[in-house]
Formats: sequence, C-alpha cells, structure tokens
Amino acid sequence: MQIAILIYDRLTALDAVGPYEVLSRLPDAELTFVAQEPGQKRTDTGRLALLADASLAELPHPDVVLVPGGPGQAALMEDGPVHEWLRAAHETSTWTTSVCTGSLILAAAGLLAGRRATTHWRALDELRRLGVEAVEERVVFDGKLVTAAGVSAGIDMALALAAKIAGEQVAQAIQLGIEYDPQPPFDAGSPRKAPAAIVEAVRAHSRFESVPA
Amino acid sequence: MQIAILIYDRLTALDAVGPYEVLSRLPDAELTFVAQEPGQKRTDTGRLALLADASLAELPHPDVVLVPGGPGQAALMEDGPVHEWLRAAHETSTWTTSVCTGSLILAAAGLLAGRRATTHWRALDELRRLGVEAVEERVVFDGKLVTAAGVSAGIDMALALAAKIAGEQVAQAIQLGIEYDPQPPFDAGSPRKAPAAIVEAVRAHSRFESVPA
Repeated sequence: MQIAILIYDRLTALDAVGPYEVLSRLPDAELTFVAQEPGQKRTDTGRLALLADASLAELPHPDVVLVPGGPGQAALMEDGPVHEWLRAAHETSTWTTSVCTGSLILAAAGLLAGRRATTHWRALDELRRLGVEAVEERVVFDGKLVTAAGVSAGIDMALALAAKIAGEQVAQAIQLGIEYDPQPPFDAGSPRKAPAAIVEAVRAHSRFESVPA
Repeated sequence: MQIAILIYDRLTALDAVGPYEVLSRLPDAELTFVAQEPGQKRTDTGRLALLADASLAELPHPDVVLVPGGPGQAALMEDGPVHEWLRAAHETSTWTTSVCTGSLILAAAGLLAGRRATTHWRALDELRRLGVEAVEERVVFDGKLVTAAGVSAGIDMALALAAKIAGEQVAQAIQLGIEYDPQPPFDAGSPRKAPAAIVEAVRAHSRFESVPA
C-alpha cells in the first residue's frame, strides 16, 4: 500500500510527522514523503528540515494521500503542479486526507466542493469561503475524504484511518506502540475549552499557531 | 533560551518532533536539532529523514537538552562523544530531558543514577537495570531531569515543561495553537488499558513499537 505525504516549505512538522508515525507502521505500508521538488523542506519555525525522498511524478497513484498544513499552505492555493497531482491522485486513491490547513489546499484544488471537512480552528472561515461545509470536529470522514483539525489532530485521524485500512486490532497495536495515552497538563486544546483570554491571544498572534496570520 | 534536540540514525521521529512543535513556540526559543555529525538522520522506519543543523560542539551549553528514543538508541549506550556532550551540557542546563528510550541514553551517560525516571513501557526493565528508579508514569520530573514515556508522551512533557519555563498561559496558548485536544479513537495507549492480546502482540513484535526488540 503506497502512502504519500506531501511536504513543502513552511509546513508544520507535526501535521505530517504525527500521521507518519502511525501510518508507516501499517502492515505493507510503503510510505513516502513527496514534494514538487525532492529534497529538504524547512518547517514553519525555520528550526527543522524534513526530507522529501520523491517527486510528485514518482508517485502518481498512491493509495493514501496526506496533505499537512502550515503557513506554507498559502503558497499552494493557486492552480499548478501540486493541484494537478492531487486531482489525478484523488481519482484513484483509496483515501485522500489532510491535517490542519492542508484541507485548504485540497479545497483550492477542487476536491472538497460541497463536502464536509475540517481544518485548524482559526481557518474554518477560510475553508467555508472555499465552498466547503466546514465543521468544527476533530476528524471528519466524508466518503474517501478524511480531514483533521489543527496540527496534533493528525494523530487521531491516522489512528481512525488505520482502523479502516487494517482493522481495529492493528490500530490499537500501533496506538500502544507509540504509547498514545494522552495526558495533556491543561484542558486548553480547543477554543471551546481554553480560557477566553488565551483564545484571543492565539487568534491575534501568529507565534502560537500554524495557520496564516 | 537555547534548546538542543539530539538526533541520530534510527530515532523515532515523533519522539523529537512532538516536543519540538511545543518548545520551538516558546518566547525567545532558539531551538536546534543537533547530532554528533550534522546532516540527515534517517528515522527508524527508513521512510523519513530529519536534518541536524549543528554539531554537538556548536552547542556545548544549551539551556534545555532533549534526547528522543528509538531503535538507534542501542548504538548510543557506550561511552563516547554523545555521553561526554550530555554530561557537560547537563552540568549547566536548566532542564535535561528525554522521551521514550532516550532516558536509556541519559542513564548510560551516568545522569540518572538513583533518580526517578520513565521510558517506553517496554523498556522499563532495562531502565531499572541501569540503576534508575523506573516508574510507569507519563511524565516524570526529578529536579531538573524530566523524562517522558513512549513516543507521543513527549508532547505532554513539553507542555508541562513549557509551563515551568514560561508560565501556564504560554503553555496553554501553545496547546491551543497546535489544537492539542486529543480524542484517540481507542483507549489502548498504555499496557494497563489495551486488551491483553494486543499488549502481548506488541511485546512480541517489533513492528508496532519503537524500542529494541
């Protein structure tokens, strides 16, 4: 099973690496980080680079496509080679997926028109403007399109997807392998839960988030 | 504030990238991925490479040291340049930390003798054999030594550490920025919660885990 994770400059690393850590452990997974130009992609903080091993042309028909988000998403909203690849890949994929603002790229490529989907909480309005039924849920399945909320939501999405692909026992084994028994020290991970002052601070300042300011 | 994340071949990516995603967003954070030899480090699955931007010698005295785990940990248990760097860095660090089997490296370097610490659930016995008071907790603080359980536990550790470094409001803002409101589809993330058959399968097979088989 071919899994292609699209990466690009100024992506948010955890958007890609969370799902990678789950999906790469599926039986028979052949997971590849792909990019328009293979090589190093510097993440949004500038402090890390991930390597894309293959070009888009090398993986025209992956079974699973995953598009992460991050500030670099803004540079991928115009039609071009990435959109063309996404549209062609989606025609034959089993699952077409995104994390965070990756869904804005899917929407811009024309793959989410009228579909239910999600994104980072700060980007829900933008997703809506792109003609998508944007919902504030952590993981959204709509047919073979699967979208996750911001950044860390990709781990939850990947486990749900792993269960669809290989069964619940395999998904649980992967969850246990990565010891995903989350115990966040605060209950501030969504705008419905965080103190209002924190929500306003994050909405106003780009330091704390991974979507375009 | 200098933060150094040590990487090496066959590390588990999420061990490093989870905490990176949190700690890089601290005010005044200067986070650097370091390695004995700078350059690309291929992760345990072989499917991803992370880039180390600096050598150990370039960051002799970081304020925060973080050591991730993964199968490659086994190659770093003998005394040598990595241990020397860790010992010297620990003398002046504010926090010396690990995720997953990274604590085995800290222990082998002599930094955890008689201390309370944790690691991936499969490696607790090995940590104990290294003279450490190994405990099955998700995040363990013992003075300036902070250790996390397996793989995904690094996110929880980093948020707890962010609160110590910059206050709870900053930590909560980072949590909201990465939308860390975990909703795993299964409650199978620890050996105390997963079905017994899954625990045995993961204990027996290296596919599902990130510690040496």
